[in-house]
This record gives sequence, C-alpha cells and structure tokens, in this order.
Amino acid sequence: MIEDKNQERTDLSQLGEFGLIDHLTKHFEIKQESTIKGIGDDAAVLEFKDKQVVVTTDLLVEGVHFDLSYMPLKHLGYKAVIVNLSDVFAMNADATQITVSIAMSNRFPLEAIEELYAGIETAAKLYGVDVIGGDTTSSTTGLLISVTAIGTVSKEDVVLRNGAKPNDLLVVTGDIGSAYMGLQVLEREKEVFKVNPNSQPDLEPYTYIIERQLKPEARQDIVKLLKELEVKPTSMIDISDGLSSEIIHLCKQSKVGCDLYENKIPLDPQLISTCEEFDIDATTVALSGGEDYELLFTISQDDFPKIKANPNLTVIGFMTEEHAGMHLVTRAETKIPLKAQGWNALNDQTNQES
Amino acid sequence: MIEDKNQERTDLSQLGEFGLIDHLTKHFEIKQESTIKGIGDDAAVLEFKDKQVVVTTDLLVEGVHFDLSYMPLKHLGYKAVIVNLSDVFAMNADATQITVSIAMSNRFPLEAIEELYAGIETAAKLYGVDVIGGDTTSSTTGLLISVTAIGTVSKEDVVLRNGAKPNDLLVVTGDIGSAYMGLQVLEREKEVFKVNPNSQPDLEPYTYIIERQLKPEARQDIVKLLKELEVKPTSMIDISDGLSSEIIHLCKQSKVGCDLYENKIPLDPQLISTCEEFDIDATTVALSGGEDYELLFTISQDDFPKIKANPNLTVIGFMTEEHAGMHLVTRAETKIPLKAQGWNALNDQTNQES
Repeated sequence: MIEDKNQERTDLSQLGEFGLIDHLTKHFEIKQESTIKGIGDDAAVLEFKDKQVVVTTDLLVEGVHFDLSYMPLKHLGYKAVIVNLSDVFAMNADATQITVSIAMSNRFPLEAIEELYAGIETAAKLYGVDVIGGDTTSSTTGLLISVTAIGTVSKEDVVLRNGAKPNDLLVVTGDIGSAYMGLQVLEREKEVFKVNPNSQPDLEPYTYIIERQLKPEARQDIVKLLKELEVKPTSMIDISDGLSSEIIHLCKQSKVGCDLYENKIPLDPQLISTCEEFDIDATTVALSGGEDYELLFTISQDDFPKIKANPNLTVIGFMTEEHAGMHLVTRAETKIPLKAQGWNALNDQTNQES
Repeated sequence: MIEDKNQERTDLSQLGEFGLIDHLTKHFEIKQESTIKGIGDDAAVLEFKDKQVVVTTDLLVEGVHFDLSYMPLKHLGYKAVIVNLSDVFAMNADATQITVSIAMSNRFPLEAIEELYAGIETAAKLYGVDVIGGDTTSSTTGLLISVTAIGTVSKEDVVLRNGAKPNDLLVVTGDIGSAYMGLQVLEREKEVFKVNPNSQPDLEPYTYIIERQLKPEARQDIVKLLKELEVKPTSMIDISDGLSSEIIHLCKQSKVGCDLYENKIPLDPQLISTCEEFDIDATTVALSGGEDYELLFTISQDDFPKIKANPNLTVIGFMTEEHAGMHLVTRAETKIPLKAQGWNALNDQTNQES
C-alpha cells in the first residue's frame, strides 16, 4: 500500500476515444474458430454452426464490488473476466468470446487503464477466449466494468438449474468461504493502514484466502473433467453469492428439497484458522460468504462411482422431495432450515461478533 | 421540468436484488425462435443454426451521455436499446436479443427504475428483440446502462466497413444533424429554467429535432428495404459520431477516398431554421453532430437504378482512389479536406458563435 510517486502518467484525453481503444486492444489476438471478425466494425461477427450459444453479463462497480485501495487494477481486470466465465462454465459450456466495456473517471491515467487491460488480456489468454468488442468511455466519478461472456455447448450437454431430482447427490468443487474471509483480512489491514500508514502488515498467514478474493479462478477444468468422467450433472450453478443462496436456487428451480451436511462442506485450513482469529463461525462464512466461483451441481446417484475418487469434487448432501424442505444437518446432527442469508446477514454477524 | 412532489416512492432495498430483477423482468416475453432460455439461469441459451451472429455493446453514462434534467427515464431506456440495435442493423443483420445491465444509486426509487425498464421493454417489443439477461446493481453516484445486442445474418449478407470500392456511390438514410441541434435546444432551455424556473418554454418549433435527440429510432426498416430492393451495400456503418467521422471510417477501412457533396446532405427544414436561430452552420452540424443513428453505406453504381426513387435514401457522394483523399465539395464548388471533428470541435464552434 505504498504509492510510487514517480509513476508515469499519460492523460487519457491525449489519445482520444478511438486512439485509446486501438492502443488498448492492439495486442488482442483472435484464436477461436467461431470468431469471424473481432474488434473494429459496428459489431463482431461470430459463427457457431450447430452449437448452442450461452450469453451472460455482469457489472463490477467501484465502491460496491471492489475497493481500489487493496484491489490492484490488473487483478480487477482479471476478476471481471473470471466472474463472467464462471457463469458460462456453470452451463457446462466452453467459453469462447467476451466483450469488455469500461467507464472511468479522468483521475485514472492511461497507465492505470493499461494495467486493467493487462489483467483482462491475461485472463482471456489463459482461458482461451477472444475479446471481440467493447466500449471505453468516461464517467463522472468511479470506475465501472461491464463484461458479456459468450460460450458454446452441444445441445445435449447444456445443464440448467432446474434438472435436479430427489435422491440426486449435491456436489461442490474446491473449497468454500475463503474469498469472503480474504476480504475481511484486507478490510482489516485497510483500517490499520488508515491509523498507521507505516505499519507493514504480515499477510503470510492469509496468502491463500487473499488470493481467493483478489485473483479468483473459474472452473473451466471442471467442465472438461465432467466430460472425461462422462458425468452430465442434472443441474448446476456457480457460487457467487454464497453456498446456501445457490442451493436454494437449485432447489426452487428444480422443485426439490435438500439435506446439506455441515461436516461435509470443504473448508481450507487457512479459512478455519482465520475464522477462529476473527471469532466468526466458518460454516456461516461458507454458507453466506460468496465470491468463491466454485461450481455447485447435482448428479444422479448412479454417477457416484465416477466422481468419488476425485479430490476436486465433494459430495455435501442430497436432494429430497420438495415438501421435505431445505435443511442444514449440523455436526450435532440437528436439522435446521437453510436460509439465503447473503452478505448482509453475514455483515451483521461480523459486526456483532468481531 | 416541473416535479410532482407526490410521486410514489418505493425504496429499492425493500425488494432485494433477486426480487428487483424478478419484478422488472416479469413482463418480458420471449418471441425469437433462437432464444432457447432467457432470464433465470447462469446464462441465456441461444441457437442460431447456420446463421452468422453479430454482437455489439455500448455504455451510456449519466453526466457523459445523458442529462436526467431533460431526458425522461423512459426515453433513456428506449435510447439505450436503440443505439445498440443501430450497430446490429449497420451489419445488415436482424436484431434478435439484448442483455441490459444497470448500475444506479439509491437516490432512484423503484418507480424510476420501472420507468427506465418500461422504455427498454417498449423498444424491445417494437423491434422484436428478446431481453435475455442482465445485471442490476447499485452505484455510488450516478446511473449507468450497459446494453449488449445480438443479431443474426446469413453469411452472404453480412456487410462490413471495409468493402467500398472507387466509384461506389455513398448513400445516407433519413436526414442528418437534427439530434445534435435538438440537444442544443434542450441545453438552452435548461439554462433558462435555472434562471427562471417559472418560465414555460415554447418547444413547438423544435418538436422534430428534440424527438431525434430524446427518442431516436434505429433503421431496421432499411435492412428490410435493401433486401427487398436486392441491394447489398459494399460497406456500411451507423452514424453515431457525425457524418464526417463515419465517412472517414469507411474510407480508411476500405482504403478508398471520397468526394462528399455539401448540397446533397439531407437536412430537415427544422434543423435549418434552428441553425439559423443559433447562428451555427448546418453543414458543420451534419458533419460533426452525431447521434443521428442513420445508416451510411456504399453501393455499386450498377445498383443506382434500384434505389434512386426511394425517399429514404440519398446519394451524397462517391468513393475515389485512396490517393485522391477525402473531400467535401462545397456549395461554392471548392474542395476542402474532410476532417473528423466530432463533438469537441463543434462545441468549440458553438461556444465561439453563440
């Protein structure tokens, strides 16, 4: 959090709108066969042949979704792409193209926007998606990024939220809750920095959970893995708002109930120790934290043998009849109703407890 | 510009994010055959079969692209859709789907956002496009709308910016410059209102040009007309930034020059009289004004007989060899180089002259 006062600073107005777009997008390469024409016309031209096409869009707003005092611009550009690709993968689709629109105030010099685009480019390259368009404009105050992601999937492979059946197993990828606690650590260090700008924070005990917040990944690997394992989920969603909220979406849209086992929820050891330090319940964080960008899906019990050996996949519960309701089965083996608390409820708890 | 102090006002936080999206999108109907699944999953699912797909995106930012003191929210929603559809039609494509993302501060009550969505819905219905997704989030200050539009076109019908040949005719639809002068009238009335809030402006002499600014239309009809006339333009672009800037785009991308005839540029009588009143040159307004959302295209001379009788289409010049350069042939029959002045240059002129 130490600023380099000797940074180069090029004013955006020197380039003009078209100059700026040319400057920022000249490195972008077209790699997808389905991209016929990328940036540079009134619209991009794509060709998907017999594939189905999925489209999703997300806005990230300064002061709402990110805080530039601890989110480096390159990471922000990266994350803006990831949160959209995650939605594509949640359809069991391959991501193919993105458009990126940015509104930014004049307080950002060209070098700052280059950092942002460097993050966008890094994510696009790593995930093999083409940047095919966008818009760059000024804003009266903050920074805002709007990404639309496009993907393709064979008609028979697409997975919606509404296909779960009673007795299906509920499966989650990776581990849950870390991104939220990473944010809590960053928020705490920001407060410390405000009081004493010379303090040097020791973030070593939090590297994993901070990375989960600042540089999340989208589970492209899971879409491939499921194909290799010959498992087609019956329903799927990505975890952006917290596990319980996403489970409720699957249940409501599939018209089923669910038993979720607290002791099965995959938690990273760093998350557990940080929750202890903050005196906050790790299960509550996993249920309501959000921003994990893991995938949550249901499979037929017949498919269990295919997934059981895989360390990326954890069975955390099973679906029930709709009238049975949605429940968390606690470690003490009591059943409590599952609620979509979301961040607000969690913030209340954090405020009360810490 | 008189506020009704008794308006209903529902706080956005009462609904929550999912409640808000449900509330706003429940009227949206799916009509396009290519829309398999619209709003309600991680992503929309589309199927285009053997068609090519065009994708374009635009951001509208409060204080930069619009001023809510004279832009009603319903018109703003309508216009945000139109500016994107215009880009789809400029590819000679049919518009099929849009996504709409909105960031807004808490100062807007639910009723305001409903107005905005009513405009979006009106445009979507009129142009026959499905609203298949989006994002609604808060912002720390103003209002921002990000729209992505999708369209389809047969491979052999797509028209890019780079196909113009020397001797091709340069054709424009409708009339040019009115949207910019409509904005000047609105800006003037805003200043008058600031000084004397009781003044009742007489906008009768400006109805057409104000409508061109507040409620522009996209030329879907021209895409149909060209098909009926069996004319495929050699290049095409929509006029969002001013005629001269768009001509320069076509010339540069097609590697040709151009002679544009001042006396052929189609101007509405109301535009001419308003320019006289403001003591500003109407040709300059047409060349640099922007926001007309007309189409500018080139055709082979062989196709001239097919279009000459049509009142929607005006031949305003012809393309030349690249080395001949880009010129405006004035009423006095002198040739001056065509410059992409854009709004900034025009604002300077307005400031100097008025």
